[in-house]
Amino acid sequence: MRKLGIISRCDRDDVIALVNDIVSHLRSRAEVLIDFKTAEKIHQKGTPMAEMRKRGAEFIVSIGGDGTVLRGIQKMDDPLPVLGINMGTFGFLVDVNPEDALMAIDKALSGFEVEERSRLAVMVNDEQSPPATNEVVIITANPAKILHYRIFVDKNQLEDLRADGMVFATPTGSTAYAMSAGGPIVDPRVDGTVIVPLAPFKLSARPWVVPAQNEIRVELVIPKKEAVIVIDGQYTRKISENDRILITKADKPARFVMTRKDGFYEKVRSKLS
Amino acid sequence: MRKLGIISRCDRDDVIALVNDIVSHLRSRAEVLIDFKTAEKIHQKGTPMAEMRKRGAEFIVSIGGDGTVLRGIQKMDDPLPVLGINMGTFGFLVDVNPEDALMAIDKALSGFEVEERSRLAVMVNDEQSPPATNEVVIITANPAKILHYRIFVDKNQLEDLRADGMVFATPTGSTAYAMSAGGPIVDPRVDGTVIVPLAPFKLSARPWVVPAQNEIRVELVIPKKEAVIVIDGQYTRKISENDRILITKADKPARFVMTRKDGFYEKVRSKLS
Amino acid sequence: MRKLGIISRCDRDDVIALVNDIVSHLRSRAEVLIDFKTAEKIHQKGTPMAEMRKRGAEFIVSIGGDGTVLRGIQKMDDPLPVLGINMGTFGFLVDVNPEDALMAIDKALSGFEVEERSRLAVMVNDEQSPPATNEVVIITANPAKILHYRIFVDKNQLEDLRADGMVFATPTGSTAYAMSAGGPIVDPRVDGTVIVPLAPFKLSARPWVVPAQNEIRVELVIPKKEAVIVIDGQYTRKISENDRILITKADKPARFVMTRKDGFYEKVRSKLS
Amino acid sequence: MRKLGIISRCDRDDVIALVNDIVSHLRSRAEVLIDFKTAEKIHQKGTPMAEMRKRGAEFIVSIGGDGTVLRGIQKMDDPLPVLGINMGTFGFLVDVNPEDALMAIDKALSGFEVEERSRLAVMVNDEQSPPATNEVVIITANPAKILHYRIFVDKNQLEDLRADGMVFATPTGSTAYAMSAGGPIVDPRVDGTVIVPLAPFKLSARPWVVPAQNEIRVELVIPKKEAVIVIDGQYTRKISENDRILITKADKPARFVMTRKDGFYEKVRSKLS
Repeated sequence: MRKLGIISRCDRDDVIALVNDIVSHLRSRAEVLIDFKTAEKIHQKGTPMAEMRKRGAEFIVSIGGDGTVLRGIQKMDDPLPVLGINMGTFGFLVDVNPEDALMAIDKALSGFEVEERSRLAVMVNDEQSPPATNEVVIITANPAKILHYRIFVDKNQLEDLRADGMVFATPTGSTAYAMSAGGPIVDPRVDGTVIVPLAPFKLSARPWVVPAQNEIRVELVIPKKEAVIVIDGQYTRKISENDRILITKADKPARFVMTRKDGFYEKVRSKLS
Repeated sequence: MRKLGIISRCDRDDVIALVNDIVSHLRSRAEVLIDFKTAEKIHQKGTPMAEMRKRGAEFIVSIGGDGTVLRGIQKMDDPLPVLGINMGTFGFLVDVNPEDALMAIDKALSGFEVEERSRLAVMVNDEQSPPATNEVVIITANPAKILHYRIFVDKNQLEDLRADGMVFATPTGSTAYAMSAGGPIVDPRVDGTVIVPLAPFKLSARPWVVPAQNEIRVELVIPKKEAVIVIDGQYTRKISENDRILITKADKPARFVMTRKDGFYEKVRSKLS
Repeated sequence: MRKLGIISRCDRDDVIALVNDIVSHLRSRAEVLIDFKTAEKIHQKGTPMAEMRKRGAEFIVSIGGDGTVLRGIQKMDDPLPVLGINMGTFGFLVDVNPEDALMAIDKALSGFEVEERSRLAVMVNDEQSPPATNEVVIITANPAKILHYRIFVDKNQLEDLRADGMVFATPTGSTAYAMSAGGPIVDPRVDGTVIVPLAPFKLSARPWVVPAQNEIRVELVIPKKEAVIVIDGQYTRKISENDRILITKADKPARFVMTRKDGFYEKVRSKLS
Repeated sequence: MRKLGIISRCDRDDVIALVNDIVSHLRSRAEVLIDFKTAEKIHQKGTPMAEMRKRGAEFIVSIGGDGTVLRGIQKMDDPLPVLGINMGTFGFLVDVNPEDALMAIDKALSGFEVEERSRLAVMVNDEQSPPATNEVVIITANPAKILHYRIFVDKNQLEDLRADGMVFATPTGSTAYAMSAGGPIVDPRVDGTVIVPLAPFKLSARPWVVPAQNEIRVELVIPKKEAVIVIDGQYTRKISENDRILITKADKPARFVMTRKDGFYEKVRSKLS
């Protein structure tokens, strides 16, 4: 019997209702592994996202918005393909409307193509943070208090500037926070990382696109100030001046169940125009 | 005998040394009223900034950077003219270098012209916040967590958008935080308020310039989220969803001891080019 | 008997058809003066726009788009109020749909409020150019060949930069070409002029808002190159290096028949969001 | 005997003087082939740039600015490495100061490393235009008259917008015209093409980075209007509505004699900060 995983938002009744519908629908067709928090909501036994692959799931159904998808992927070292059901009004990573959910899942059970999207690996000192599917943000912990950043790519200094924060985004993330900060839209086939400052106090500051493979190092020059690192809007940790932050291309990409062929540009135009 | 006030940064020895020099220098020429925190540093009796005018000070000498000037003005309902001594590397409100401080103070004691700069009055619910010489920022209290704003000018809705924050700046503040956020540079003679979103999640968002006299009202649509209001980088308070924020032109302007005639453009070019 | 003027696009049959409808409709109600080019199209006697006021017209009906409105106003030293019928898909100066044209004209004949919008006066050497309702553009005559500009406000130098062009816009024009160039949206009640460079080769270049009353002077440093001045997209003339260009607030504003009270913000939101 | 080519600006005496110095200096060391226009200036026999490789030149010395380098490369199908002598005040492609010219040439004669930079191939209908080292610009032939563009990447529509022009730049060109238009700075190791609109009349328009290998197709929707295509600021031709424009990665890259190892970021910081 086929196996798939489920993850969902847990704070909305309509989402949990759809999870129940999906679980009922799949009863005779597939074995369902359910993320802990969602499982608790529907009184079932949960499975950690990190074990979904090992336990044999072939793909993950995510019911919610981009945040739910990002949270699910973040917990998988070698991510299973995700099929995103869109329960919100806006999202780049969730293509299926709720009314089409069962049909889309059935279709995926009978076979699907995978779309890979590169992720960013993040090291703080010698400790691995969760990889980023959209972006890594390093930002002041005190709203409206500027920080001082030095950015290096391999051994070469790219920037030295004061700003509220810095966004390091994958092409996938170029239509998310990096875009709000003024960055370019980058085709996911381009093997690059977008670097965009947030409210830079330097008129010559510009967005950059650097090779994804190279190592980006961030130095904070912030005596007596505090920063945080935020990954995909899901994971947050404090950063202090002496922390050494390295960002590189992750070994394992995010993966998506491909639901439409018209691709990235069509999605950008329909969502952003 | 003439009277003047003094305010300074208190965290740097060179600043306190200059304060001592100034106080010594003025001994026989003028009576000196010293802001509490500075007074404590040099073991003298302090005077609240708010009482400087009533106690007869004719102008204020500020030793530090823009922050010190802004902090001093913020505490005066009807601000005395400020003569800013620049102890840092950058500042739009501090024109005098430390080595010229005594001469500039003597010159001001023998007479000066005043340059007025309009301020913004800020009401949160029915409570007056300190007026802003540079800007009022309303911003997410949780770094990288977007808020939802509705901005009205009088009864008319100007904007409805999601963003990290919103900057409402005087022309004086148009070269500070508002500029980092992408706003235009506004000549201080223009009677307008600059409104600039911080990292707006809306591609059509643009900076605005609206009449300074009209009432700007800000509504936050942030169930379960927190925002802060930050005035001139000096004053901070929490804001919740039901708070009613009004921004208008303040009755009393900021005032500066005019030290050069070449004016605003020259300063912008020398500081920003 | 009441008198009004008519101006229209002349290159579209549906526009001319509506002109005919309007003229027929008005036969017994008002005397109609028709701009030359339109008059020729419908085989009637024409009246120069410049004489409409002297000949007793109370307002002008413009049938077309923003361009038609701008062309009509440009020819009037002391502009009559314009009622714009929108024959295109987009326009900030044309509020009435064709199907509502007759009704709107009848309503205006029984009385209307006037909305004034400031214009820019342009002098090249000692010669008056037509005033600008939207903007004055000074731009390279050779596409993609950069020019060198020096901009002064009164005696003070504002900018010295290389760029394809420079846009000087009224608040009315801040939603037109100036916006494409990256300028702020300026409320028409703000008495300021927007200055925006087109493709500046200078990272620190920013849009400016300067007082409308002050005199803006433009110097071109363009040996062997050619520039043109374009006013409201309607009037063009060549500029060479030694020409002296002055831009100030025009004595006489543009005037519009007010058709809706919701005003500028509502229009911006409906047109641009 | 070694062979090298020379190209230069021809409109400045100091440049021609340096060309003479270089030719004298090389007399006994290398055979010199001189571009036609430069050869004429110093009364020597010229060699077309297009034949330099076939005639055995190992590299090209360009004396002037970026324009001279771009003009030289444009004429070579399979470009020889260029050593740029900087006779101006600014340039990204010219690293050697005039006083170091002879030494740098001697050094190159004894061996050099080559830095490759990708170019863009441009087809108008079935006709090959010169390849672009910096950028291809498609722009209105009538200053300040907007055009209507549709941009496709392979079969997918990327954009549909009105703008003065469109810039398609290599990473090398990302610090030139594309940057003036608001584009990101792209590391030359990123295999992408930057697409930036010039003064787009569409608030949601953003710069793009697309894969360099894919085919970019541009459609103009411009009845009765004229456009021009400008390549590297050196080559211009008219474009009309029915012309089919294709932009792809060129087979042969531009090549440079590497004169410093600190690379692209250092150059950007020293030139643009």
